[in-house]
Amino acid sequence: MLVSRREVEIEWGDCDPAGIVFYPRYFAMFDASTALLLERATGMKKIAWTKKFGIVGIPMVDTRAKFIVPSRYGDLIAIETRATRLGRSSFDVEHRVLKSETLAIEAQETRVWAGRDPDDPDGIKGMPIPEEVVRALKAD
Amino acid sequence: MLVSRREVEIEWGDCDPAGIVFYPRYFAMFDASTALLLERATGMKKIAWTKKFGIVGIPMVDTRAKFIVPSRYGDLIAIETRATRLGRSSFDVEHRVLKSETLAIEAQETRVWAGRDPDDPDGIKGMPIPEEVVRALKAD
Amino acid sequence: MLVSRREVEIEWGDCDPAGIVFYPRYFAMFDASTALLLERATGMKKIAWTKKFGIVGIPMVDTRAKFIVPSRYGDLIAIETRATRLGRSSFDVEHRVLKSETLAIEAQETRVWAGRDPDDPDGIKGMPIPEEVVRALKAD
Amino acid sequence: MLVSRREVEIEWGDCDPAGIVFYPRYFAMFDASTALLLERATGMKKIAWTKKFGIVGIPMVDTRAKFIVPSRYGDLIAIETRATRLGRSSFDVEHRVLKSETLAIEAQETRVWAGRDPDDPDGIKGMPIPEEVVRALKAD
Repeated sequence: MLVSRREVEIEWGDCDPAGIVFYPRYFAMFDASTALLLERATGMKKIAWTKKFGIVGIPMVDTRAKFIVPSRYGDLIAIETRATRLGRSSFDVEHRVLKSETLAIEAQETRVWAGRDPDDPDGIKGMPIPEEVVRALKAD
Repeated sequence: MLVSRREVEIEWGDCDPAGIVFYPRYFAMFDASTALLLERATGMKKIAWTKKFGIVGIPMVDTRAKFIVPSRYGDLIAIETRATRLGRSSFDVEHRVLKSETLAIEAQETRVWAGRDPDDPDGIKGMPIPEEVVRALKAD
Repeated sequence: MLVSRREVEIEWGDCDPAGIVFYPRYFAMFDASTALLLERATGMKKIAWTKKFGIVGIPMVDTRAKFIVPSRYGDLIAIETRATRLGRSSFDVEHRVLKSETLAIEAQETRVWAGRDPDDPDGIKGMPIPEEVVRALKAD
Repeated sequence: MLVSRREVEIEWGDCDPAGIVFYPRYFAMFDASTALLLERATGMKKIAWTKKFGIVGIPMVDTRAKFIVPSRYGDLIAIETRATRLGRSSFDVEHRVLKSETLAIEAQETRVWAGRDPDDPDGIKGMPIPEEVVRALKAD
């Protein structure tokens, strides 16, 4: 599978009075990491690939994170992101947060490839993930 | 002028490693306080009054805050919000943050009553603030 | 088990360009909901009960959320929070987000009752959850 | 004056239902930009220079921002940050946000070089900004 890696430096405003990252901030980092994975898979920014494939987005349906080692202000972490399952209209993504060689957080998410529901203008509906996106996410 | 007052309890996640509120969080509180002022002036949620008056929102053009007394996790603050100037298509709002009787923060903002620009579908344009909104914001 | 319920109105700044709550924001709401559960169980603010029981906090070790129904700006949600397992030094909490009668989100978390590690001044260590806290969280 | 420039790509989670950056997010970006300016001036991370100079931080006392051009998801902005005044124990910082060549936001802030108050263990007090920091911030 394609692995998208990025480095993030923990900012002062990411941390709480205990001096460690306020954990909801990690989910914001993971959301950006998944966007980057798709950007690398499609060669386009999210705003361009959602338009190209006629979808509204990839909403989250289920996410989980295990926090193993805390991070503090000024720490440099690496986030490694890859798809772990590609279904017809939903897919799983895994994020591994590393501090040097140590696994600090392990997170999974399930998202839907979602377009407008033709039967309900306000609703959304799972659509088939395009073959070229599947292929790119599966590439080594 | 109509004064909208609300109480906010400082949450753990609002605070930084120094144990005090991370100041960008105050601006999020002020944005919600201005929305509440307009809600009380119009008797409608923002989603309803933007629709009723045919505008896209009230974007910020200029804001300033003086931080006098810091607040910590668990503190209870009161935010008093009022319009201080009502122009044709822009208006000023003032927020006063009080801890008990002490003035903790003083903030001002200038916003625009903004609709779609008829000459540019992506752009926005100042529109006249409706008389009934002006009247409600000026009420004692 | 003691159930702590609170209502939250979705703010403009909680929502993303799709118009629905940016899901990391829910985790910040859940963190405040767990703090409120403990506040109601102990009759004290977090700042007071961490001091009384000599702990540094209740860090998150594992959390999961299933997003069933999205919420939008202006929506009113209720968050119902309760402990679902009380171990020696760790405990599980469940959050149920309701829109009217509909279950919108189901979330679980595992936290540690953590004090300073006597063998490592920078480290933390699980400590036994006080009997009175266990009793209060188990109360009907 | 030393100018610290960094590029920031606007993330999905930075934006609101109008599709533009929720303005409190800019203040979080500016806070990190000021930390970076000091990092470049001192050659050390904030955590190191606060320790070296025996201060608790550089709390904000006054900030202002003018929003001229909005930014959207996926936009790349540059933030240019420099000190504009260096007093005995307080200093001013300016941030200029550029989209290509266009000035999108202009912001100022006043911060204090703050240490522990010897007369009040909970309080903080302005301390003289070290000569070497002043020199580094003034460098061309």
